[in-house]
Amino acid sequence: MKILILGAAGMVGRKLIQRLVEAGNLGGREISRAILHDIAQPLAPQLSPFAVETLASDFSAGGEAEKLVASRPDVIFHLAAVVSGEAEADFDKGSRINLDGTRRLFDAIRAVGDGYRPRLVFTSSIAVFGAPFPEAIGDEFFLTPLTSYGTQKAIGELLLADYTRRGFFDGIGIRLPTICVRPGKPNMAASGFFSSIIREPLSGEEAVLPVPDDVRHTHASPRSAVDFLIHAATLDGAKLDARRNLTMPGVSVTVAEQIDALRRIAGDRVVARIRREPDSTIMKIVEGWPRRFDSRRAKSLGFQAEENFDDVIRIHIEDELGGAFAA
Amino acid sequence: MKILILGAAGMVGRKLIQRLVEAGNLGGREISRAILHDIAQPLAPQLSPFAVETLASDFSAGGEAEKLVASRPDVIFHLAAVVSGEAEADFDKGSRINLDGTRRLFDAIRAVGDGYRPRLVFTSSIAVFGAPFPEAIGDEFFLTPLTSYGTQKAIGELLLADYTRRGFFDGIGIRLPTICVRPGKPNMAASGFFSSIIREPLSGEEAVLPVPDDVRHTHASPRSAVDFLIHAATLDGAKLDARRNLTMPGVSVTVAEQIDALRRIAGDRVVARIRREPDSTIMKIVEGWPRRFDSRRAKSLGFQAEENFDDVIRIHIEDELGGAFAA
Repeated sequence: MKILILGAAGMVGRKLIQRLVEAGNLGGREISRAILHDIAQPLAPQLSPFAVETLASDFSAGGEAEKLVASRPDVIFHLAAVVSGEAEADFDKGSRINLDGTRRLFDAIRAVGDGYRPRLVFTSSIAVFGAPFPEAIGDEFFLTPLTSYGTQKAIGELLLADYTRRGFFDGIGIRLPTICVRPGKPNMAASGFFSSIIREPLSGEEAVLPVPDDVRHTHASPRSAVDFLIHAATLDGAKLDARRNLTMPGVSVTVAEQIDALRRIAGDRVVARIRREPDSTIMKIVEGWPRRFDSRRAKSLGFQAEENFDDVIRIHIEDELGGAFAA
Repeated sequence: MKILILGAAGMVGRKLIQRLVEAGNLGGREISRAILHDIAQPLAPQLSPFAVETLASDFSAGGEAEKLVASRPDVIFHLAAVVSGEAEADFDKGSRINLDGTRRLFDAIRAVGDGYRPRLVFTSSIAVFGAPFPEAIGDEFFLTPLTSYGTQKAIGELLLADYTRRGFFDGIGIRLPTICVRPGKPNMAASGFFSSIIREPLSGEEAVLPVPDDVRHTHASPRSAVDFLIHAATLDGAKLDARRNLTMPGVSVTVAEQIDALRRIAGDRVVARIRREPDSTIMKIVEGWPRRFDSRRAKSLGFQAEENFDDVIRIHIEDELGGAFAA
């Protein structure tokens, strides 16, 4: 089977391709070829059992999406996006990539025709929800995003459901909770601090906490994000009926609970590296975000995340730090 | 004040301009000028107390939306759309008008800049909802449209909320229930029969009922539709917070109850003009539509519809038939 990954140079994309290379198959079907695409050339994985092609282009530019789907990949992972902070700061860029780009990709798949109907996995976001919220957001709660990023993701979800209903492709949208602990350097996402306050202290560096300790949020590890993607790629689409977009499970904790978990695992000296520096811009964005989900539908379809935040930290230490941290 | 109406040649658009001409003002502010726009030249109303300009163009074509907003209208009514049946039959046309056209209009308003921030009233539709439904759809129920038309309207709603949040304009989206009794000839809307089974019999003609008598649906009269638009144009936007799209109130009845009301008002001979001729295509579309709403939020903001279906029929006889019908 052939696989296409858009946004393959991003953190989740890189972890996904690594997992596929290790497995050599997707849902038991052998992978013959993968196309890795991003705005900048993605790195090809080493020792891949299947052919890997890497491509760099702006997939929202005319004609580019058509090139990506010309080889009729069986599964398309659409992870490409301008992140929340950047889409809020640069409305035109966010609209162009997140909205026009997504639509052009969808239309390019449709234009292939001739019975081509790939599984398309789209990463949406919990930013499709906007305050005020119930205590836990259920599967039938409405989408009232309070950021342009959330709006663009919600539009992607609507298009995905309609294109799937019309038989243009077989789409599943997964709303990722905040991925934590994100490895590497902070990106422009307003949610970046949720990872920084764990990642930097574990590496012996100072981290800035821009919001109060009682802010509650839902997280899943990068490992779970890859699990979600693979499960979404291999799930029987008939089980989803017309409602093709799902809120993924995650661990709902306050910042204080995140810090408590860090203390249990790494001790007071590590926790002391968190410096509180309130930032009203970030606080305003985060206030509009959901805190907790009742993601029953995704769970009943077999999606699974961590049970507690201690596990989220342990996975970071295992997968990113080789099992050790700066005590 | 200056007013722009897109979709002014449509049934609701014509009734809206007629009402404005009769009043001469909108929310107490004198109207100085109205621009009436549609794909075909709209008729100018007679004896208008204000200047009326009529324009025909495809507002989804490059540069056209810019021309419409160049005179900086204070209130814009965006009623233009490809209806449900047509948007389902012609996906590209529906996408172009309902999605691209709406976005181009929104972007044209934004591009005026220089503090220009008009009230924009957008007619959405209950087709943004898709089965399965709760017994009554509340204000926080999610949008899972089962038609491309509903998808395109839901996307319009999301864009309207985001453009309003960003201060590009001051938008309010109103989800119209099925407008009944629609005067004139049937259009391509799959919901057309809800009106036909009242309108045709009252005019001495046969009507076709393509669905079973137990189909339940929500209706409001054309007079209420104009009331909704005017209320939305004059409502204090600050009362709506970030949730700018509202389900309008209406009368929820079964087809059998519609027919009973017709019998009470017009008698058995009129009712006998309804001929049952099941149509599985229409039934399939209608099955995906909502039946009843709990539109608390709109009501609390002062939107009002008829109390019962008898009133819906009486308004048709008053407004369209000069008070008499073909007994």
